[in-house]
Amino acid sequence: MKTANPQLNEHGELIHLLSIEGLSRDILHAILDRAAPFTAVAEREVKKVPLLRGKSVFNLFFENSTRTRTTFEIAAKRLSADVINLNINTSSAAKGESLLDTVDNLAAMQADMFVVRHAASGAPYLIAQHLAATGRNHIHVVNAGDGRHSHPTQGLLDMYTIRHYKRDFTQLTVAVVGDILHSRVARSQLHALSTLGVPEIRLVGPQTLLPTYAAQMIENAPLRVCHDISEGLRGADVVMTLRLQNERMNGALLPSTQEYFKSYGLTPEKLALAKPDAIVMHPGPMNRGVEIDSSVADGCQAVILPQVTFGIAVRMAVMSMLAGTSGAGQ
Amino acid sequence: MKTANPQLNEHGELIHLLSIEGLSRDILHAILDRAAPFTAVAEREVKKVPLLRGKSVFNLFFENSTRTRTTFEIAAKRLSADVINLNINTSSAAKGESLLDTVDNLAAMQADMFVVRHAASGAPYLIAQHLAATGRNHIHVVNAGDGRHSHPTQGLLDMYTIRHYKRDFTQLTVAVVGDILHSRVARSQLHALSTLGVPEIRLVGPQTLLPTYAAQMIENAPLRVCHDISEGLRGADVVMTLRLQNERMNGALLPSTQEYFKSYGLTPEKLALAKPDAIVMHPGPMNRGVEIDSSVADGCQAVILPQVTFGIAVRMAVMSMLAGTSGAGQ
Amino acid sequence: MKTANPQLNEHGELIHLLSIEGLSRDILHAILDRAAPFTAVAEREVKKVPLLRGKSVFNLFFENSTRTRTTFEIAAKRLSADVINLNINTSSAAKGESLLDTVDNLAAMQADMFVVRHAASGAPYLIAQHLAATGRNHIHVVNAGDGRHSHPTQGLLDMYTIRHYKRDFTQLTVAVVGDILHSRVARSQLHALSTLGVPEIRLVGPQTLLPTYAAQMIENAPLRVCHDISEGLRGADVVMTLRLQNERMNGALLPSTQEYFKSYGLTPEKLALAKPDAIVMHPGPMNRGVEIDSSVADGCQAVILPQVTFGIAVRMAVMSMLAGTSGAGQ
Repeated sequence: MKTANPQLNEHGELIHLLSIEGLSRDILHAILDRAAPFTAVAEREVKKVPLLRGKSVFNLFFENSTRTRTTFEIAAKRLSADVINLNINTSSAAKGESLLDTVDNLAAMQADMFVVRHAASGAPYLIAQHLAATGRNHIHVVNAGDGRHSHPTQGLLDMYTIRHYKRDFTQLTVAVVGDILHSRVARSQLHALSTLGVPEIRLVGPQTLLPTYAAQMIENAPLRVCHDISEGLRGADVVMTLRLQNERMNGALLPSTQEYFKSYGLTPEKLALAKPDAIVMHPGPMNRGVEIDSSVADGCQAVILPQVTFGIAVRMAVMSMLAGTSGAGQ
Repeated sequence: MKTANPQLNEHGELIHLLSIEGLSRDILHAILDRAAPFTAVAEREVKKVPLLRGKSVFNLFFENSTRTRTTFEIAAKRLSADVINLNINTSSAAKGESLLDTVDNLAAMQADMFVVRHAASGAPYLIAQHLAATGRNHIHVVNAGDGRHSHPTQGLLDMYTIRHYKRDFTQLTVAVVGDILHSRVARSQLHALSTLGVPEIRLVGPQTLLPTYAAQMIENAPLRVCHDISEGLRGADVVMTLRLQNERMNGALLPSTQEYFKSYGLTPEKLALAKPDAIVMHPGPMNRGVEIDSSVADGCQAVILPQVTFGIAVRMAVMSMLAGTSGAGQ
Repeated sequence: MKTANPQLNEHGELIHLLSIEGLSRDILHAILDRAAPFTAVAEREVKKVPLLRGKSVFNLFFENSTRTRTTFEIAAKRLSADVINLNINTSSAAKGESLLDTVDNLAAMQADMFVVRHAASGAPYLIAQHLAATGRNHIHVVNAGDGRHSHPTQGLLDMYTIRHYKRDFTQLTVAVVGDILHSRVARSQLHALSTLGVPEIRLVGPQTLLPTYAAQMIENAPLRVCHDISEGLRGADVVMTLRLQNERMNGALLPSTQEYFKSYGLTPEKLALAKPDAIVMHPGPMNRGVEIDSSVADGCQAVILPQVTFGIAVRMAVMSMLAGTSGAGQ
């Protein structure tokens, strides 16, 4: 999977969105550029454009996520697509049909796009490869989160948000706080930040969730592990908090959520160490009082709700961009 | 919540539909007037009007109700809106996200309207207040049933039905039969009947479900408690039966459903006590043989299915009326 | 149910699709003829035609089937209908509302079409009869699978597939392999094959699943039971494999799935007994390694994915044909 790039066709155009990894700075900026006018569509009286009219978009969710599914459903409907929601855990999967048989069947129904959420890392890649191998290059795949691997539209909307507020990536210090090593959101963020030229990316979290070797998790990225939050936040332009997954909360890795909040929860006091105009981000849904204090979440430096708004525009951008391309992956 | 009226803007126009309580007779008639032409839309070849084209309506159901959700979904689609169904019990709520964080997120996706069903009384109010407090007055809230509090579109469709068959509210005797004290449907009906000038409203049911003090449950309303069904039905123009909730059926409050049927179930014999042209209503779904006999439910005095038909028109009326207004609650 | 034909109006036009049984050869060919242009719609840039614009189609699924529901949802959306999905097991049925009360309610919402899946054989008939009895002849019913009785759109798409590849039904030898006696899919296939004039239909399966008297299961049909698969497949033009239902797998009827595969699983060796240009069909979802070997399922004689594609076109044909007719059943 690493040598070739199944996301791009022979002209270097995006045909699938599988991960941020492997996308150039130009492509990332092209997606963000394309998203900008879609933020205006959402403020119109009639929030629709006909770019995907008559196309069939399948929300193929092998893992439940109403929130993410909703963002893609809205994005596709505002592009005038027909949207079919499929929660596969309660369906054919129970009947023992394989992932690829399900994909073959939906492809045979003349799907135009699959938005895929799956608990297994690499599932969207597998689907894209299978479509290529079976001569169905006209069907596009968007990864909506796969295992611990990637959540590229989240990474893109985060970049849109940073660019919106900070303009130039190449002057920024960005702190990512939380369980970075196991987070698909973080992985996508780090690839994006690195590709876009952020010169200092700090990974902030406890030794147990974030061993020192995490600084090597992405090749050639300017990553720096900080177990001390003060060191991590000092002078930062952007503070990206991560959701503490429930399964981490009551295991051996963390003594308690209170302890975590005390050490790494983003409070006004800790945030005061960052630059005065630093922005605070969170991918949602938030655990208030665990990774973030309510006064910060609702404070004037938080851009958490704009992230959501930009997320719709970014997904519209990705979907409409894909729909305009075709051809085999490289 | 009682002093101001968050349902109306500074011009007295409806911006949310949260409860019948607090709405004037003029507003109620205005909604019913607006519903009338929508009954014709539903009989056209193409059952659509473009009044909500490009709008995003979220069916935000924190409590499962396929039936009510369906009526709102159809109403919104016939107005050409994009409808997103969210069953929140299986989603973010499970991840511990708060009601207001969920609302903030959906609002940030540029929602235009929330149709809210919630087990907690007051949840739609809370949402409307929160939207006002966060400067999102352009988003409208429709209460689709909250706890034991209110189910205003049910109350409105009931009034539409009565007006359709009986014309003048101010000459009517209306009997409401069943567990009125704990019913959000009944509460909405009573407020509406009282506001529209019905001079005699009889509350009919057993002492255990309907204590005598129930006659005071709504201020200044001409309520009269009748534990004897003959007394309750005699000479009535309208008989509104209520669904006996399952949780009441096998508790200490009722000896048995057979006993209930014997005393309060609407049979042809009991109905004969009402006026010969009395109409029989039920909000559905019916427990045949418990609160109503099949021969009455399917008889010529029943207007139970017209209630459903009018319900779509009334919901179209409410949604299109709200979509045409804006501004902060009073 | 047998004497009259509730599927046809007084002009012999299709008003409901309840089963293949009772439909003439002309009607079957008329449906297949109508499906042909819809296969082209699905290959257009904008995959929509306005034939059902403004119509309300209810997917009324009393038994869960994401796969079948999806095919009807896509077909209806490509015809521009408004589609409402109802999974009734989690809804009013739980509240004790009867099937016919549910139907009455949805009919009162001005439904135009019900697509019905139900575990009880005959449920779609019951609904169609009830609609006729209550003067709602303008609402059409499509059976999407009822108990062990019928799955007519599956039967039709199978016939479309055979006609597409083999043209003339009257020269064919068709083998149906598996648990035919208990399969609604098989029942629909056999009625269709017989009506369309296939001169030899072989029922192939073990004695325990397929007793010899199965040859009489459809009156006047040229059925022949073969317990020996070699005898069943020899010289066949079409091999229709059936899904082995899970409940059959570990009961007293079959020693094991491995045994079943050894005796009746379609392998390249067994398939070699059929004509060299024989086509292999399966209604899906497949149990690879149980009723069919992967090399056959993915081989060049398999037309399993074209079946799915044709299935959308056939459902569009049925829905648009029904929408153009009205009147009472015969």
